[in-house]
Amino acid sequence: MQVDLRSDTVTKPTAAMKEAMINAEVGDDVYGEDPTVNELEKYAANYLGMEAAIFCPSGTMTNQIGINVLSQPYEEVICYEGSHIYKYEGGGVAGTSGLSMKLLKGDRGRLSLNDIKEAINPDDIHAPITSIVSLENTVNKGGGSYYSLSEIKAIGQLCREHGLKFHLDGARLFNALVETGDDPKEYGKHFDTISICLSKGLGAPVGSLLVGKADHIKKARRVRKFMGGGMRQAGFIAAAGLYALQNNIDRLKEDHKKARILGQTLASLSYVEEVLPVDTNIVIFKLAEGISTAQYLDALKQHQILAGPFGPREIRFVTHLDYNDQMLEYTVEAIKKISF
Amino acid sequence: MQVDLRSDTVTKPTAAMKEAMINAEVGDDVYGEDPTVNELEKYAANYLGMEAAIFCPSGTMTNQIGINVLSQPYEEVICYEGSHIYKYEGGGVAGTSGLSMKLLKGDRGRLSLNDIKEAINPDDIHAPITSIVSLENTVNKGGGSYYSLSEIKAIGQLCREHGLKFHLDGARLFNALVETGDDPKEYGKHFDTISICLSKGLGAPVGSLLVGKADHIKKARRVRKFMGGGMRQAGFIAAAGLYALQNNIDRLKEDHKKARILGQTLASLSYVEEVLPVDTNIVIFKLAEGISTAQYLDALKQHQILAGPFGPREIRFVTHLDYNDQMLEYTVEAIKKISF
Amino acid sequence: MQVDLRSDTVTKPTAAMKEAMINAEVGDDVYGEDPTVNELEKYAANYLGMEAAIFCPSGTMTNQIGINVLSQPYEEVICYEGSHIYKYEGGGVAGTSGLSMKLLKGDRGRLSLNDIKEAINPDDIHAPITSIVSLENTVNKGGGSYYSLSEIKAIGQLCREHGLKFHLDGARLFNALVETGDDPKEYGKHFDTISICLSKGLGAPVGSLLVGKADHIKKARRVRKFMGGGMRQAGFIAAAGLYALQNNIDRLKEDHKKARILGQTLASLSYVEEVLPVDTNIVIFKLAEGISTAQYLDALKQHQILAGPFGPREIRFVTHLDYNDQMLEYTVEAIKKISF
Amino acid sequence: MQVDLRSDTVTKPTAAMKEAMINAEVGDDVYGEDPTVNELEKYAANYLGMEAAIFCPSGTMTNQIGINVLSQPYEEVICYEGSHIYKYEGGGVAGTSGLSMKLLKGDRGRLSLNDIKEAINPDDIHAPITSIVSLENTVNKGGGSYYSLSEIKAIGQLCREHGLKFHLDGARLFNALVETGDDPKEYGKHFDTISICLSKGLGAPVGSLLVGKADHIKKARRVRKFMGGGMRQAGFIAAAGLYALQNNIDRLKEDHKKARILGQTLASLSYVEEVLPVDTNIVIFKLAEGISTAQYLDALKQHQILAGPFGPREIRFVTHLDYNDQMLEYTVEAIKKISF
Repeated sequence: MQVDLRSDTVTKPTAAMKEAMINAEVGDDVYGEDPTVNELEKYAANYLGMEAAIFCPSGTMTNQIGINVLSQPYEEVICYEGSHIYKYEGGGVAGTSGLSMKLLKGDRGRLSLNDIKEAINPDDIHAPITSIVSLENTVNKGGGSYYSLSEIKAIGQLCREHGLKFHLDGARLFNALVETGDDPKEYGKHFDTISICLSKGLGAPVGSLLVGKADHIKKARRVRKFMGGGMRQAGFIAAAGLYALQNNIDRLKEDHKKARILGQTLASLSYVEEVLPVDTNIVIFKLAEGISTAQYLDALKQHQILAGPFGPREIRFVTHLDYNDQMLEYTVEAIKKISF
Repeated sequence: MQVDLRSDTVTKPTAAMKEAMINAEVGDDVYGEDPTVNELEKYAANYLGMEAAIFCPSGTMTNQIGINVLSQPYEEVICYEGSHIYKYEGGGVAGTSGLSMKLLKGDRGRLSLNDIKEAINPDDIHAPITSIVSLENTVNKGGGSYYSLSEIKAIGQLCREHGLKFHLDGARLFNALVETGDDPKEYGKHFDTISICLSKGLGAPVGSLLVGKADHIKKARRVRKFMGGGMRQAGFIAAAGLYALQNNIDRLKEDHKKARILGQTLASLSYVEEVLPVDTNIVIFKLAEGISTAQYLDALKQHQILAGPFGPREIRFVTHLDYNDQMLEYTVEAIKKISF
Repeated sequence: MQVDLRSDTVTKPTAAMKEAMINAEVGDDVYGEDPTVNELEKYAANYLGMEAAIFCPSGTMTNQIGINVLSQPYEEVICYEGSHIYKYEGGGVAGTSGLSMKLLKGDRGRLSLNDIKEAINPDDIHAPITSIVSLENTVNKGGGSYYSLSEIKAIGQLCREHGLKFHLDGARLFNALVETGDDPKEYGKHFDTISICLSKGLGAPVGSLLVGKADHIKKARRVRKFMGGGMRQAGFIAAAGLYALQNNIDRLKEDHKKARILGQTLASLSYVEEVLPVDTNIVIFKLAEGISTAQYLDALKQHQILAGPFGPREIRFVTHLDYNDQMLEYTVEAIKKISF
Repeated sequence: MQVDLRSDTVTKPTAAMKEAMINAEVGDDVYGEDPTVNELEKYAANYLGMEAAIFCPSGTMTNQIGINVLSQPYEEVICYEGSHIYKYEGGGVAGTSGLSMKLLKGDRGRLSLNDIKEAINPDDIHAPITSIVSLENTVNKGGGSYYSLSEIKAIGQLCREHGLKFHLDGARLFNALVETGDDPKEYGKHFDTISICLSKGLGAPVGSLLVGKADHIKKARRVRKFMGGGMRQAGFIAAAGLYALQNNIDRLKEDHKKARILGQTLASLSYVEEVLPVDTNIVIFKLAEGISTAQYLDALKQHQILAGPFGPREIRFVTHLDYNDQMLEYTVEAIKKISF
């Protein structure tokens, strides 16, 4: 059995999703004439209770566009020191938008109201103007930890009080929502822009959306253009995304259940020093001293299991749509067999 | 009958192309594991006799990446004053790569060896360092005009002599190739990077490729990452592109034939002041004095014909895969009927 | 006799100006505590009827700051194709502010209302947003040509109608003012920002000022900081600038008179093909066919005369504070003696 | 008595320094013809055992130029989280050069070999390429702490092993040198670029130098041009800098002695919770709980003493050329009198 736990991005479309793709009505989206893209954008905006949305080829693009439309060069973004926008987007925040970053430690990546407040620069020309707070939910490097809506609300309030813009990297927002049961429409009230990803837990092959206020999304169309994200008959892939949004959200709970089982199993193993709390579909654990990341990934490979290196002696498992019950059972057995 | 002559980007996949899409083997291309994307990149590189290629969501992205990997900020690009990279890519050359532009008039957009030579800045810190020559072939604003291989070769030689990089916006390179009969593999010898588009005359729904030397394409993978062009299971759309490259090049001659017929017809009409020579699939013409662009587009719309405004009293027709013989016949009749 | 006609930047302070420098009261200008800098900024703002000013080490910096505070990246500036901001500021408009440029030919560099109007981009995401019109007065590459106040007024009006910002590179504005007799306070009404230079015709050793609306100059203080233009006890050089503004404007007429004499002399010489009209202190002339720029500069050097190369077969003479009557007489004799 | 302990930038030239200024031989430095600037650049390069130097209006500019010539956009700089380039240069590292920053805690701002090693990003397109290590010596936010030459040497070695460039913000390098007794010429062997400031402890009114390898300084001339740092007859201020380098280094020891006395006094006061070790001319101390920064600065002002706020309950004193024995005595008495 082949098992891929590296990321929830590795899923392949189901037959039903492919059916939706091939039957999609398409047009030239650069002219705004692709009906499926238009429908997807409208659906996503409505889902989050926001005014508009724009479809893009990747979550890196939607994050970078969001941050770009909310800022001017030489300003500063407050975010978690392990956040995707800082560590995994090729240096785009500085390179594309010219922004400095105030990096906070957070609690498993979740920023507290007070930390954010203290991180706002004083009004002095030596320091960049603080202009954006960017959260990640769920927090990847925090092991899938998530915010409650009331925390979000309080931070949004703080942002408005200080004239800051508020962006959400919601690549795995749906994982948070199925856990908290929060109303997605409430979410949209607090942020200026939200990036959501269709090709992670939701299982679509390609695409993300930036959702936001109408004027920000209007500006985002310009940014998407110069970043090269304007696609022609994009309806084929948008159709998969629409299908994903309409069919694959609730089932994320399954992924979370599987992740918890993996976490519990790992916690009982002698070669594991520590497992981060498993809140959603991500399991991060630390190997016992003396066992290297490479060593462990090799051992997993012996069992045809792929996983992700996540730091020195740190491993990440991510459960997803293509990770079924048989695979879970198989993984549990396999990781028990591994020894050093 | 509905006729769309606005651009060759408006085509929709044929049944055979959709078949190729749906049957594509896919994987996570961010991990380099999408076999169809890999095959497409290899095919394109080989087609142009170059070392490597990278698949991107748009031609704007492939142009902007090409220019970015060949330059450093504050340098200067020599190009045609009507070139796509200057006029239609959202200001990306300056905004994304920080480059100034030396804009040349050209002969219907084709730059002469001498004009380029004179446009190279002297070695003086007041002026930006000239670092790139960027051509467009065919030249959109030049009415689909094209370069011969010997002209390309001579300019490439000049670039090497002056330490300049050489980029080609080959969005419609295939249209040039079917006219000149030049060997595409020869083409690759002269440029550092070539951008080709799959969703224009070739009829694929989405996607472009940047083809070039191995080290430039390696660097391009970083640039694509921060520009947000990394897609996951991109094989579905890559499959359409591969099909297009393998099946739809030769038939571009049909589009050129139709364009010439349109050009001849227009030349005979009293409301047309001038038709630019029709070299490929683009027909640009100037309306007689007193007739506005908007007026004429309206008149066409009465006949269910869409065309593109191209300047004051200027109109562009573009023929393409979805523009068939019946449509040509219909258009010829319709434009004869129009009068002012 | 040594004669330097390369530029009006080569002048050295007079004894009186040096006296003003050494007696200047100074403080730490980064804390806003240099009284001489503060006085200079106030004087300049008042002179042009504007709200505020900021002192900087160079005219390149004041131009680049002006353009930066009036724009956002990926927008476009309309300017003369020979303008200093495009040709002689190291590519800063694109590199520092990420702006594209719409380059106009103009009449000896002076832009007409109609040319500007036609150069404004349509509201289409493919094209950069046109956001600034930048004039130069006098126009260096136009041979010191200048605008009348009524022309300025009309262009300012057009800018406001189209929501464009209006910047003036007034490096040699004083030369224009002494010719037209226009009220400098009227000038300030039409522009958002004006850059003036103290180290050209006015004879100060170092420094330029950006003059503008209070909020733009407030923002300019941030830009000056990150561009590295904040100086500590800058009062020493500001004192020279203040002296220059208070004493050296009217005498620019002398420079113009000398320039006209040089122009008339040149026009009568067989090795000169053409002399551009001499409006202020700049004389640009074209050598007869067969005589190269280098050849002529060499011939001048035989007479201890320095001049500037200005293009193929083009030479520039600039008269200035340190170019006295004896030097003029000497130059007239010398250039008559040269032959090829 | 008026006492200013805010910074060592507040000093005003002595009579001897002013004498040097007014007698300076000057020329147009944009043409490379100012003999005093040339002499200063040569002197500084030689002093640090490096090939070349460039004179600039500020230390922010020399730091930003140094970092710019050593990098390309989207790369990453490793530095101290309290470093001047991150906190006090207006966001220039991100804004001007497009660089991300890996921020390290350090020991009073001094980075260890191991921390730097671990901070180098892996070769993965998600993460920026680490390209520069930037140190500060002495470390301002570290309370004037300094590195030994052997530490510098080891970090330089690490940089070369990993292909990293090595920049020093040596705004107060002279303070470190007089304490360690290290040979400045040895210093130059380890860094690619060193920024030194003439207007801090050395007492010159304006100016900094970037010192480095010849090709980096050649490139720096271009960067200085587009950043607007090219000045005309800059010899007047360069003369003060030259005087400062030749006369005011050794006497920094006096400042350090005074700082230590202030530190000892503060340590004995009940309203002071903690005094950072006083290594050079900077004294940073924390007020006892319940006393705010503003409260204490006010109390000092009652005694005509100015000092700098440096964080919540944190105050900075900086001793300097204009802070004499009488002022020291007066300060010691005054701070003893203050109570809460």
